[in-house]
Amino acid sequence: MNDLLPSWNDGAAKSRILDFVARATKPGGPDFVPPAERIATFDNDGTLWCEHPLQVQGFFLIDRVKELAAKDPGMAGRQPFKALLEHDLKTLHGLGRQALMELGFATHAGVTDEAFDTIASNWLATARHPKFARLFKTCTYRPQVELLDYLRRHAFKTYIVSGGGADFIRAVAEEAYGIPREQVIGSSVKLRFDAQNGRAGLMKLSELNSFDDRDVKPQNIALHIGRRPVLAFGNSDGDLAMLRYTTTGPGARLALLLHHDDDSREAAYDREFRLSPLAEALDKADEYGITVVSMKRDWNAVFADAGE
Amino acid sequence: MNDLLPSWNDGAAKSRILDFVARATKPGGPDFVPPAERIATFDNDGTLWCEHPLQVQGFFLIDRVKELAAKDPGMAGRQPFKALLEHDLKTLHGLGRQALMELGFATHAGVTDEAFDTIASNWLATARHPKFARLFKTCTYRPQVELLDYLRRHAFKTYIVSGGGADFIRAVAEEAYGIPREQVIGSSVKLRFDAQNGRAGLMKLSELNSFDDRDVKPQNIALHIGRRPVLAFGNSDGDLAMLRYTTTGPGARLALLLHHDDDSREAAYDREFRLSPLAEALDKADEYGITVVSMKRDWNAVFADAGE
Repeated sequence: MNDLLPSWNDGAAKSRILDFVARATKPGGPDFVPPAERIATFDNDGTLWCEHPLQVQGFFLIDRVKELAAKDPGMAGRQPFKALLEHDLKTLHGLGRQALMELGFATHAGVTDEAFDTIASNWLATARHPKFARLFKTCTYRPQVELLDYLRRHAFKTYIVSGGGADFIRAVAEEAYGIPREQVIGSSVKLRFDAQNGRAGLMKLSELNSFDDRDVKPQNIALHIGRRPVLAFGNSDGDLAMLRYTTTGPGARLALLLHHDDDSREAAYDREFRLSPLAEALDKADEYGITVVSMKRDWNAVFADAGE
Repeated sequence: MNDLLPSWNDGAAKSRILDFVARATKPGGPDFVPPAERIATFDNDGTLWCEHPLQVQGFFLIDRVKELAAKDPGMAGRQPFKALLEHDLKTLHGLGRQALMELGFATHAGVTDEAFDTIASNWLATARHPKFARLFKTCTYRPQVELLDYLRRHAFKTYIVSGGGADFIRAVAEEAYGIPREQVIGSSVKLRFDAQNGRAGLMKLSELNSFDDRDVKPQNIALHIGRRPVLAFGNSDGDLAMLRYTTTGPGARLALLLHHDDDSREAAYDREFRLSPLAEALDKADEYGITVVSMKRDWNAVFADAGE
């Protein structure tokens, strides 16, 4: 048999995936899912690419503050930028949620969506992960890229549903995962439509539109897709609502949760990781019918390429 | 030549459509648009199906109020329901915007998104247009159904971007236009995620999330699709921002505006139609590079089937 998931070790997780796809795609079978209904939603950070010790977008934010500070000398003396540039995390956290929002807006707004796409694309083309010694855009997980491809071969439509910024992920999703921009759902800022000098465009504003985490994930799935997924994959408590939303319903359903338990190849963390804790989802996985995937046990490869 | 737009008369509008598609799809040509970028966005009411004298969703709203009033005898005595049930449009308009919102929420919220889909689907299966003597779901325009199909044959991805409710349009878009639910962008209410008794779902709330009209159309296109369309089709001033957004940019672009000037076959209206006026877009079409389509002159058929 031609194994379409070569980076997945034989075991319960792989069996459940293969069984689910077989049932969902068997014409006339009791669990057959028509192709139009084959919606699969994936969290991004920590599910499709690494997020530890800091999300890729966090590294982007830091580099972008440095870049902006180089053009605006006063910035390095102002909070919250000062604390960030001085790696003073204690002060930064003490400044609270509003300060973090301000960092987000300063680095992700005040430009058009198309200008931001260029900024993010340029950064992703060259920026490297300090721990894994590879381009950030290759910090994707090989077993997941295989799974996305496997699902698409069976007429599933694959979506990203991420707490990260949709516009940031769109700059890399096609290349990294084969997922087109319109199948990326994520956090977003409000936009302003401008039509001046015969040119119309959209300015990214310093105002949150949607923070796509927890309950907001199923809400945004309904808003954007208008169908309940039949497969969902996450890795933190922020994905639990999406996973439960997916398991509710008739027929074949599959909810998966990646557990980062592989300190030698990537990282081992769960409930203590304050940026994206995994606790409730892990504790209640059995009760909610969620399949836990162990990076250490279920994957024979981690990253999508060999790195450098 | 096999004419894929048989309901379009030869003329400037049809020529521009054929020329645009030829240029956009010619490999190596100066205006070639890669398939992934072939995004075409269509307004719905008055562009893909009739909206005069009242939008289809308006008829749905009235029927739904009647249905709700039959179960809640007090409703017929309360405003704004009283005015609606008594066809007292003067009082209704006097109650203002908040009253109209209340009518919308009472008829489109307070149920799950999936329950609403059933309600809308059941209504659409049998409800008939009083003026055109046909099912509402066949009040679609044949030339537009042909155009959607023609574009998809050339690898365009066709979207609806409507001021109408996304959930309402989703109940009919696949059957009426071949447009899947996830390619419907429209107005929406906020949702609440509930997970009770082992079942997770989404409740439609009496709070506006997005009124998808005017500047909000390009904003929602950026939010949902993340690409600027290369073709857009509208019929009112509410579509002007989307049309201008579409014409801005390099390469092949086409913005179209349907003018309802056919009183014998459908209706003749523009700037006086208060529910969806067409004035600025008509006056400035030339300046903005928008092609005006005359229903009377450019279409040799109007409705998608013969009716009854």
